[in-house]
Formats: sequence, C-alpha cells, structure tokens
Amino acid sequence: MKVFGIDPGSERTGYGCVETDGSRHRMIASGAIRTAGHLPFPEKLLRIHIALTELLADLNPDCVAIEGIFHAVNARSALKLGHARGVAMLAAVEAGVTVVEYTPAEIKRAVVGYGRAEKQQVQQMVKLILGLDAPPASHDAADALAVAICHVHSATSRLPAGRSAARSRGAASWRQYQPVRS
Amino acid sequence: MKVFGIDPGSERTGYGCVETDGSRHRMIASGAIRTAGHLPFPEKLLRIHIALTELLADLNPDCVAIEGIFHAVNARSALKLGHARGVAMLAAVEAGVTVVEYTPAEIKRAVVGYGRAEKQQVQQMVKLILGLDAPPASHDAADALAVAICHVHSATSRLPAGRSAARSRGAASWRQYQPVRS
Repeated sequence: MKVFGIDPGSERTGYGCVETDGSRHRMIASGAIRTAGHLPFPEKLLRIHIALTELLADLNPDCVAIEGIFHAVNARSALKLGHARGVAMLAAVEAGVTVVEYTPAEIKRAVVGYGRAEKQQVQQMVKLILGLDAPPASHDAADALAVAICHVHSATSRLPAGRSAARSRGAASWRQYQPVRS
Repeated sequence: MKVFGIDPGSERTGYGCVETDGSRHRMIASGAIRTAGHLPFPEKLLRIHIALTELLADLNPDCVAIEGIFHAVNARSALKLGHARGVAMLAAVEAGVTVVEYTPAEIKRAVVGYGRAEKQQVQQMVKLILGLDAPPASHDAADALAVAICHVHSATSRLPAGRSAARSRGAASWRQYQPVRS
C-alpha cells in the first residue's frame, strides 16, 4: 500500500508518500510546495493544484490522507486553509484516489501513541518509523508523513491485507471518501 | 465587458453572467450548480470545478467576481465554504480570468444603494437592473448576479472604457487577482 499524506496551507503545503508491506514502512517522497508570498491568492491555489496533480501522477498512491481540521481555529484562517484543502482534495479526486481524513489527535495517537503529543515528538517518531537519518527538514513534510503513517497504521491494523484495507468502509473514527464514477 | 459572478457553496454554487456596454447591463446566463447530498465531499468539489470550468469556457468572461467572506462565520462553516471557494477560484485562474472580490456590504451598496439591505431587496434590484421578467428562481443565482453587477458598476464607474476597467489596479475597496503567467 502506498499512501500520500498532505498537510495543506496556502503558503506551504507539505506532502509525504509512505509505502508499506504491512509491517515495514518506507518513505518514497516528501517535501513542501512553497508559494511565493507576492503571488495573488488564486495563483497560489493554482500552483498547489498543479504540483499535487504532478506528484500524484508520478507516485500513483492508493490513497491520499489529509489532516481533518476539527479543532477551533478562527473563521478567517479556517477559510484560507479551506481554499488550500479544497484544491488538494480536488487534485486527489481528479487522480481517482480515495481521500481519508484523520483528526490531529488520531494522527498523534497513531504516530506517538499519545493524542496530545508535541510537534517535536511527532517529528522524532516519523524519523524513527521511516528509518530516516534525520527528521524531515520541513515541518510541513513531517506533518504530511505523519498523516500518511497514521493511515498506514490504521489501515493495516484493521485489515492486514494491505492494499485492500484502503478500500474498507464504515470505520467510525476516520472519514473516507471514495471516488464516484459518473 | 462580461462579468461572471460566483456565489460558492459545497451544496449549491450560484453563478450569473452579466454583459454591459457601460450603461445597459443584460444577463447572459445564470443558474446554480447543485451537488447531490449523498456525494462524498471531495466529489462535490470535483463537480463544482468541472461545471465552472465548462461555464467559463463557454461564456469566456473578462472577469470573475466572487463574494469575499469578511463577516464572522464559525470556523467549521468557513472551512467548508473555503473548499468550495478554493475550487471556484482555481477554475477562474485556470481559465486565465482575473478574479475580483467584494464584501457583502459592497455588493449590497452597489446593487441596492444601501450596505445593509435585505436579501429580498437585492433580488428585486437584480431583476430591475437586468430587466428580467421575474427575480432569478434560485437565491444562489441571484447572489451571483448581484456580485457580477457590483463589479460592473464598480469597474464602469472607475474607468468608463468598459473592458479595460477590469484590468485597472489599485482600487482600495476590492481585491483583484490577475493571472500570472509563468
């Protein structure tokens, strides 16, 4: 199973792709899509969408995992973040890939074992789980890898059949969206 | 000048296209993109994006006008709305069209002459300004036509040269995004 994690943002969108055989996980790709501050906002959305579309075409993951925003942020920042998440989700569904969402607490619990873990603990565990020499340079990439690992753990613990786990339905704690063909 | 107004929403996205010769405005198209309630959220975004992309290709407007959300909505609804606005803006910038934003008060002031006008007053004025037999059947279409009229008024009163008005810069009260070619 290959999971592509996304940590969206209008200035920086982190991404990280994790492949697993069910027990061992390795990082296939990770990084951050940065949009120049001077760019008009819709142009930033375009750059994010183009970059994610290309990455999804190159990496051909089974699933896109994305952090669901369920905690209280203010309306203005939620609105801005929503735009970036919207074009990220669009890129995934255009690529025909299932989209799953996890809460920040679920991600921390899956990666560190504790739902209120600190950001640094998450980064250290991402490094450990993926056998990296150092934590990912970008915080956004680390967060994207964390949500990918969260889905890998969740899917492999539910259905050990690997790839087919991403196709399961009805899991209560995560929201899953499967592409609908018209 | 031809202005395409959008009133985005994940369930219903209103649109309305208004053409002007500088003094007389007429409606070219209007309607609402409805997404079936049972569809997964990313799939709704896909439908909105596809529909807007097709409409923009058909109508070939000079400008896309969209309501800027500056009033306090709660974080959750702002986030959801942000997704829909994000894919709407993306469709506009992909079509190479300038995006302009107006506050709800600016739209009401431009259409009714009063920034705190009621929704029904806006709809009645949309009917009157565009010489329609009846107000648009869909509230969302009416709201989209209102933001298009707002930009038509704003652009024609600033620069009577019609089409070139949409290319002007530096207007303080509205945010304008011009496509950047890379």
